[in-house]
Amino acid sequence: MARSTPAQVARLDREDPLAHKREAFDIPEGVIYLDGNSLGALPRGVASRLADVVSRQWGQSLIRGWNEHDWIDLPARVGDKIARLIGAERGSVVAADSTSINLFKVLAAALKMRPGRKVILSDSGNFPTDLYMAQGLAALLASGHELKVVPPEDVAAAIDETVAVTMITEVDYKTGRRHDMRALTKRAHEAGALAIWDLAHSAGAFPVDLAGAEADFAVGCGYKYLNGGPGAPAFLYVAPRHRDAVEPPLTGWMGHAAPFAFDLDYRPAEGVNRMRVGTPPVISLSALDAALDVFADVDMRALREKSVSLCELFIAEVEARCPDLALASPREAALRGSQVSFRCDFGYPLMQALIARGVIGDFRAPDIVRFGFAPLYLSYRDVFRAAEVLEEIILTRAWDREKFKKKAKVT
Amino acid sequence: MARSTPAQVARLDREDPLAHKREAFDIPEGVIYLDGNSLGALPRGVASRLADVVSRQWGQSLIRGWNEHDWIDLPARVGDKIARLIGAERGSVVAADSTSINLFKVLAAALKMRPGRKVILSDSGNFPTDLYMAQGLAALLASGHELKVVPPEDVAAAIDETVAVTMITEVDYKTGRRHDMRALTKRAHEAGALAIWDLAHSAGAFPVDLAGAEADFAVGCGYKYLNGGPGAPAFLYVAPRHRDAVEPPLTGWMGHAAPFAFDLDYRPAEGVNRMRVGTPPVISLSALDAALDVFADVDMRALREKSVSLCELFIAEVEARCPDLALASPREAALRGSQVSFRCDFGYPLMQALIARGVIGDFRAPDIVRFGFAPLYLSYRDVFRAAEVLEEIILTRAWDREKFKKKAKVT
Repeated sequence: MARSTPAQVARLDREDPLAHKREAFDIPEGVIYLDGNSLGALPRGVASRLADVVSRQWGQSLIRGWNEHDWIDLPARVGDKIARLIGAERGSVVAADSTSINLFKVLAAALKMRPGRKVILSDSGNFPTDLYMAQGLAALLASGHELKVVPPEDVAAAIDETVAVTMITEVDYKTGRRHDMRALTKRAHEAGALAIWDLAHSAGAFPVDLAGAEADFAVGCGYKYLNGGPGAPAFLYVAPRHRDAVEPPLTGWMGHAAPFAFDLDYRPAEGVNRMRVGTPPVISLSALDAALDVFADVDMRALREKSVSLCELFIAEVEARCPDLALASPREAALRGSQVSFRCDFGYPLMQALIARGVIGDFRAPDIVRFGFAPLYLSYRDVFRAAEVLEEIILTRAWDREKFKKKAKVT
Repeated sequence: MARSTPAQVARLDREDPLAHKREAFDIPEGVIYLDGNSLGALPRGVASRLADVVSRQWGQSLIRGWNEHDWIDLPARVGDKIARLIGAERGSVVAADSTSINLFKVLAAALKMRPGRKVILSDSGNFPTDLYMAQGLAALLASGHELKVVPPEDVAAAIDETVAVTMITEVDYKTGRRHDMRALTKRAHEAGALAIWDLAHSAGAFPVDLAGAEADFAVGCGYKYLNGGPGAPAFLYVAPRHRDAVEPPLTGWMGHAAPFAFDLDYRPAEGVNRMRVGTPPVISLSALDAALDVFADVDMRALREKSVSLCELFIAEVEARCPDLALASPREAALRGSQVSFRCDFGYPLMQALIARGVIGDFRAPDIVRFGFAPLYLSYRDVFRAAEVLEEIILTRAWDREKFKKKAKVT
């Protein structure tokens, strides 16, 4: 790909139909934030929403808040806002719990729908917690289920009549490699299996089409591209055709047909609501709800176009400026999410030096530097400048002069 | 019990060693809040803490917040604050997920520790979600487990060698009746069973002594007497003697021995941390953390003394003033939590009329009016006045002049 001039970059920003969205976020001075794939930036509306929820809704309404502010239906209201971004039918998504726990719910429900089959098929590019949850469920069930983990490129070929369910994360958290949801779901269905999709690195990053792909179940994360804040509630999708067949494994009172009847016996609620469990986390759901308002008028195709342009600009500039870095992401945009990764032997000190200069990405062992591109708050100028800083650091080997200690980081 | 004079009530308030704690809460003008057993009142420190967590910790630190603000260890830090209130050993409690989900975790782990036994013993005074979760787990395991629900007074006699685990809520959400944790746990252990305690209506309401009672597991709620806000994270206790034997059923990355190694295989973390699942909900955990700071210098015995005095004052005044109301709670303080309930044929409109006058309790079908007594923000004057208002409403049958519609309310 060709290099860009500063003038060309400035023009891209001037013509960016999403440029005004930057104002909806509170980004620190001097920071170019390329880690929204790990923790999204703070939407300006969140602080005032939380102040209102805490001081007025909770503080003044107290217990009456459940009625006065309809807290009970927050999971469905937030779910519907997410549904639009992921191509889900209205009423098919709830926001609740964590991605891991939601995965457990849909995986257990899916296995129950394929009683004769014992294989849960996943791939080594899946985020580890998904694999752990499947291992834990298989151990709990103690009925011969097996988690089969193949390389990402072998998933399609590994789908056979032994597979009960495919459990795939659409976008690889390390490389940004994107699976073909439609093709793999079709292949799963042809083999009689169900398809669960983890949209952790998809939702809010580009338009997803769950209904079009005929996905059976999906889960995803509220704190990455959806910007719901650290540890925000996650979400869960059940295809409407399965809504009455699904048997939830975590049968809490909020998934009961009549929670306030306080019956002693469980009866599942209608549809996806039966996948709710405990009392909804009103404060953190409200933060996510406010964050999603930023998406209300966003054309997801325009978002994807900008995401692709930002990624292409970055790849072109970095490859031209930094020959030490080897692209770890697919070169073809259609095969990528909204993230670009490079392999580099000195990736760890390089990333620490970048962060010290305000360009925030992250590092994944053994040698991956990751950069996430959130089109709502990044400009082309940001991306161009990030490549410049990267080049300066490598040219001066800045990390030799600084001490960087190894520390853990999240997702 | 004898009636009190206003002068006696004023004296109780003057001599109340916890009276100053009222200032730590933001209670609406004109409200006497007797529903802290359902949703605790707002501690003043929460709003400023959340503003800081959102705007500075998340907004400015962004992904660096995990290290800079040690978000990763929030569940353990909050857990240790709760541990002091419930007589748990340091490092034995984590704050996470919902009460329902935490119950699932400890129940599944307990059943695994008693493989030959199939009975989960509970009672009809348990909060329904606990029963539902047990039903769901038994259905999921499909290996012959049975939830046996007996009347509360029959629990001790029903503990026999078929029982794998007793799953009991210490304080009945309807009547405030309190089980003898020490005696029932001893009985369970004598029969070779394990004991799980749900402290939803205990934690923060009076001193609990989990270690002294030799409880095996416990769970509890963050949004009742702990005042963590609507849908606050719940907590979970594992007795230190079981810490290495416990096999978690929900094996998420935050319960992994090395979450940031991103291994493909699950290995449990040390101790109670293995019961963590997904990314911690930093915003809602921070609200709970700030709420718990109010308890930091509270002598839990003094809290219990005040709780008993408030309840006794209320019972004496109501029984003298309102002969239509029949005490539904145990008369003996040692058998009650921090809640007083009455039965009354016109309980629903009565409670609506009370709420309309700013005295907030709640109603549970078919005929229970509930009043919770949170000693940190209630005065004796509040309680005396609540009884006066109750009497006025009954004398004037205030609800005949007003229309009250039946609506759902939480816990």
